[in-house]
Amino acid sequence: MMGKILRVNLTTKQITEEAYPDRLARLFMGGAAAAVKLLYDEVDPRVDSLGPENKLIVSLGFLAGTPAPSASRVAFVAKSPLTGTVGYSNSGGYFPNELRATGVQALIIEGRAEAPVYLWIGDGRAEVRDAKDYWGLNTIDTQFYLQQSLHDGNIRVACIGPAGERLVKYAAIITERRAAGRKGMGTVMGAKNLKAIAVRGAQAVALADEAAFKEATRILHQAMKDSPALYHRFRNFGTAGNVELTVGQGDMPAKNFLEPAGEEYLPIGGQAGIGYRVRHFTCDQCPVLCAQVRAVTSGPYAGYASEGPEFESLYSLGSDMCIADMGACIALDRLCDELGLDTISYGATVAMAMECYERGILSRADVDGLDLKFGNHEAAFALLRKIAFREGVGDLLAEGARAAAERIGGDAPKYAMHVKGLEPPAYDPRGLKSMGLNYMTAFTGADHSRGHSEQEVFGIPVPQAVDRLAIEGKAALTIFNQDVGGAVKDSSMLCTFVARLALLPKNLGPALVADFWRAVQGYDVTPEEVVRVGERLTNVARVWNCRAGFTRADDTLPDRLMKEPLKTGASKGHVISPADRDRMLDEYYSLRGWDARGVPTPERLAALGLEALAADLPPRP
Amino acid sequence: MMGKILRVNLTTKQITEEAYPDRLARLFMGGAAAAVKLLYDEVDPRVDSLGPENKLIVSLGFLAGTPAPSASRVAFVAKSPLTGTVGYSNSGGYFPNELRATGVQALIIEGRAEAPVYLWIGDGRAEVRDAKDYWGLNTIDTQFYLQQSLHDGNIRVACIGPAGERLVKYAAIITERRAAGRKGMGTVMGAKNLKAIAVRGAQAVALADEAAFKEATRILHQAMKDSPALYHRFRNFGTAGNVELTVGQGDMPAKNFLEPAGEEYLPIGGQAGIGYRVRHFTCDQCPVLCAQVRAVTSGPYAGYASEGPEFESLYSLGSDMCIADMGACIALDRLCDELGLDTISYGATVAMAMECYERGILSRADVDGLDLKFGNHEAAFALLRKIAFREGVGDLLAEGARAAAERIGGDAPKYAMHVKGLEPPAYDPRGLKSMGLNYMTAFTGADHSRGHSEQEVFGIPVPQAVDRLAIEGKAALTIFNQDVGGAVKDSSMLCTFVARLALLPKNLGPALVADFWRAVQGYDVTPEEVVRVGERLTNVARVWNCRAGFTRADDTLPDRLMKEPLKTGASKGHVISPADRDRMLDEYYSLRGWDARGVPTPERLAALGLEALAADLPPRP
Repeated sequence: MMGKILRVNLTTKQITEEAYPDRLARLFMGGAAAAVKLLYDEVDPRVDSLGPENKLIVSLGFLAGTPAPSASRVAFVAKSPLTGTVGYSNSGGYFPNELRATGVQALIIEGRAEAPVYLWIGDGRAEVRDAKDYWGLNTIDTQFYLQQSLHDGNIRVACIGPAGERLVKYAAIITERRAAGRKGMGTVMGAKNLKAIAVRGAQAVALADEAAFKEATRILHQAMKDSPALYHRFRNFGTAGNVELTVGQGDMPAKNFLEPAGEEYLPIGGQAGIGYRVRHFTCDQCPVLCAQVRAVTSGPYAGYASEGPEFESLYSLGSDMCIADMGACIALDRLCDELGLDTISYGATVAMAMECYERGILSRADVDGLDLKFGNHEAAFALLRKIAFREGVGDLLAEGARAAAERIGGDAPKYAMHVKGLEPPAYDPRGLKSMGLNYMTAFTGADHSRGHSEQEVFGIPVPQAVDRLAIEGKAALTIFNQDVGGAVKDSSMLCTFVARLALLPKNLGPALVADFWRAVQGYDVTPEEVVRVGERLTNVARVWNCRAGFTRADDTLPDRLMKEPLKTGASKGHVISPADRDRMLDEYYSLRGWDARGVPTPERLAALGLEALAADLPPRP
Repeated sequence: MMGKILRVNLTTKQITEEAYPDRLARLFMGGAAAAVKLLYDEVDPRVDSLGPENKLIVSLGFLAGTPAPSASRVAFVAKSPLTGTVGYSNSGGYFPNELRATGVQALIIEGRAEAPVYLWIGDGRAEVRDAKDYWGLNTIDTQFYLQQSLHDGNIRVACIGPAGERLVKYAAIITERRAAGRKGMGTVMGAKNLKAIAVRGAQAVALADEAAFKEATRILHQAMKDSPALYHRFRNFGTAGNVELTVGQGDMPAKNFLEPAGEEYLPIGGQAGIGYRVRHFTCDQCPVLCAQVRAVTSGPYAGYASEGPEFESLYSLGSDMCIADMGACIALDRLCDELGLDTISYGATVAMAMECYERGILSRADVDGLDLKFGNHEAAFALLRKIAFREGVGDLLAEGARAAAERIGGDAPKYAMHVKGLEPPAYDPRGLKSMGLNYMTAFTGADHSRGHSEQEVFGIPVPQAVDRLAIEGKAALTIFNQDVGGAVKDSSMLCTFVARLALLPKNLGPALVADFWRAVQGYDVTPEEVVRVGERLTNVARVWNCRAGFTRADDTLPDRLMKEPLKTGASKGHVISPADRDRMLDEYYSLRGWDARGVPTPERLAALGLEALAADLPPRP
């Protein structure tokens, strides 16, 4: 059974309890999918993302709180202060299952507190409380002192750090040592004066059919065991193992996408990471242990340790700024987590500034006297603190690559890598065409957590084997990844790594989600209906973005990725040209049943049971 | 009732339970006093402090685990790797009461594990466990991952950081955000391959007379409320308020004791600290809230926060290195806690190195290229990491001021401020004569937690008003402070701040400890007997130190404090000359019933019920 929805009004400090709408459950199955629908229904796309009218939806999957492995994940959804699109970020750890144990399935946080507050949710009791004793603390200390002051170390906390308090546009929400980093969901918390959400519960999730649940769990465990990559590669290397893979493929970006990362970046790879590893760690109920706790024991960063860095951060904190030093990456990663910054946006924004500095667009005086050349990790480190506290040039870079480049002016915007304002993750689309189309069309901008192209990156032949460098067939592939992946991961909230490495190779995801749904909720859905949840999510978000003013013109890539072929590596000579882009978009829109502007049609929406959205569509030309 | 003693042999991993010896309870009343007696009985003073024959005694006061305020404190006692004397350090927080809740009164940790281990003590179950998943983590992460891996955030942990693992001679033991910093008790843990002690219990302490206990608690609370200083000054400023006080008196040391701290150090004082304060914090069951959690929000240390720095650290991390920057002090304080270093020894050792550098005894090449002039906080910061990891010159400075200066050679030992190898705390004895005599005679070296001269520092007129600059009467005063303070604080383990500010002004300590003892243990002691516990402790430690080879010649001060009068401030012109020293020592020994060599006499020992120790005395000349 789904848990309840708590509506928290920070302006009035009122909290009301609502039953989970049956129609929302049936059409969106909870998780991020339902959260986006709630955003659609409740937040006008034209509101100020930092104003009281924006809402933060905190949403669990229907498997949260159950013994299903890798399902302790939470979605944070709001209008993104970084992109203006639907914003969605998620994280794992122990907070999600603990929140579910309070009986809550989703939180709708609205309004804005006049002074800093935190939200306390215990068994059967929720309260908006004064947070003056926590405002100003970093994310680790916030968690610690909340637990101490509430006299229970088993309280779980999602919180922001100084960056969120200061409305850095890419502030993260931190749970334990994990981050929901992207799209400024921490910024939304900061704008609402919401320092933290602290939870502690003891309620079990009611299962409709325990035997069926056990069987689905057994199947999932077996698929995880059968995966050649999950326990071996992910446990041993974590996601850092992707460095070796993508360096080999020539599609790990370096130097603000001026070049692909070569072997000079193997010192920040998975193999090198083993030399720094102290231990493994894991999210609640997950046997994979993919998290690598790495510590630095010599040099200027000796004493820093992080639960990471993950692959995306090894690009953004590493190769994208030309930093091939694992110690520096670990320190930057830890500091991002403590101060509450998204590692990807931070690194990509600084990489933009580094290119501007090297090109003379930014002078040394412009960057507070730092020698901001590529590879200067001391400068990157100093900038990180400045950004989090909006000090000096940090105030500019706190706006993200696009907005900062626009303020710098001149040619600077050419060097801001982003789609719809979101800085790209660790995959160069010039060598991964479906990934490129996904960056263009994902409702959140250049996003690796939507429509990740496992087929191109990992060679998984589902729905079929693909040539990563080809344009042909990539529209259908991208839709498959966005919708199937979206359904499996964004409704059930099963971990993307498990979905990717254990479920995708057998295309087992939709069937398993259907099995789990039946076992938990007590009624049947088909695997096809599960996939339709993914399609619904895509369409709902698309219509919201259309209403926000986004058009086909925004479904594009930075000029560099369309006009500057890679000069070295296994993707040498490749771009996604404007013509490639247009061809892929045409095909993508057509296959989705959207018109040539990229606007969903009333017919397609009706077929998805979303006929009510048709009224919100922009007029046909 | 006293709890049990657990004897933990790390070599064999055997743990045995022993009843608390009645004679030990009656003569030493638990806490540090009993721990020193256990050390006396079990550890030959000539053993290698880093070898398996040294033992770490972890000892609680008889009020631990009860609702008595400010009694959640723990003593760590072992042969000190820094001084070779009896080593004793203590800390508060929540760990002590949690340890008592397992039923344990004291731990005797002996032997040495072959590979890293931690000690787990739950209700009715203790185990030596593999610590490979924690070795290499800093103290904050060690606590976090132990709690996560053991699935209980309410577990309390005492642990070491990288500095303890690497046998830095002044490594600290950290509990929560508090430190048992001094005398290398963390080094002893490291030498034993003991990363942490994790505890979780639910046993209440049996009270012989609950009504009497409540009445004693009421008296203690009332004394705390009546104190003009405790809630007002300590809650508002923490110990940092002592900066203003001692700057006014001209007895806060600066620049490696070359000068007293003047008004230029008010930026690291209590008033300035308020600008950095995020919140208060407290130890278990203490209403004072003296801990100041301070955060840095601008400049190179933005993002650092610490539960401190306490006054002693504001001297060692601040004025002693000529650093008048609160942000730098907070960052250094936090980093000392994370890496597990004693703030006082670290700062004093670096101050020695700074003086050597400025005098040309250490070249820039000698200090790894750092510009180690006084006041260079960036250099101090870099050195801190180097020391914790014994990297480059850090390996030298990890030995402490005395040993490092000896290795540097030449005139360097003249600039090493220490007594018996222990670097002095924040009080310049040239302006506080009893404090000076205490530094000379305390069994642990220059120690502020033994025989602190509250009368000279705070003007408390008990047993009578004193002139802080006079030599007269200081032997008796020092004995009063060592024995009365020792009895009140080191048997009951009541917080030194409470004892100092609430109990001392009425000389209420011994009577209150006697009341509490009767209420908990069920039999009478007189206040006079309580004071005798303090005298016993002093004598037992003294005989052990004599056996270790310490003589009257070691009861002295650094030459600078005897021969270089202060040139400015309210203590201008003052020293403790060698003649002053000799005069005070003669009187001190005589009043103690020791011979002219400073050796306790068999007669005095017998009067204290310690006749058995007479056999261990060095032969009379």
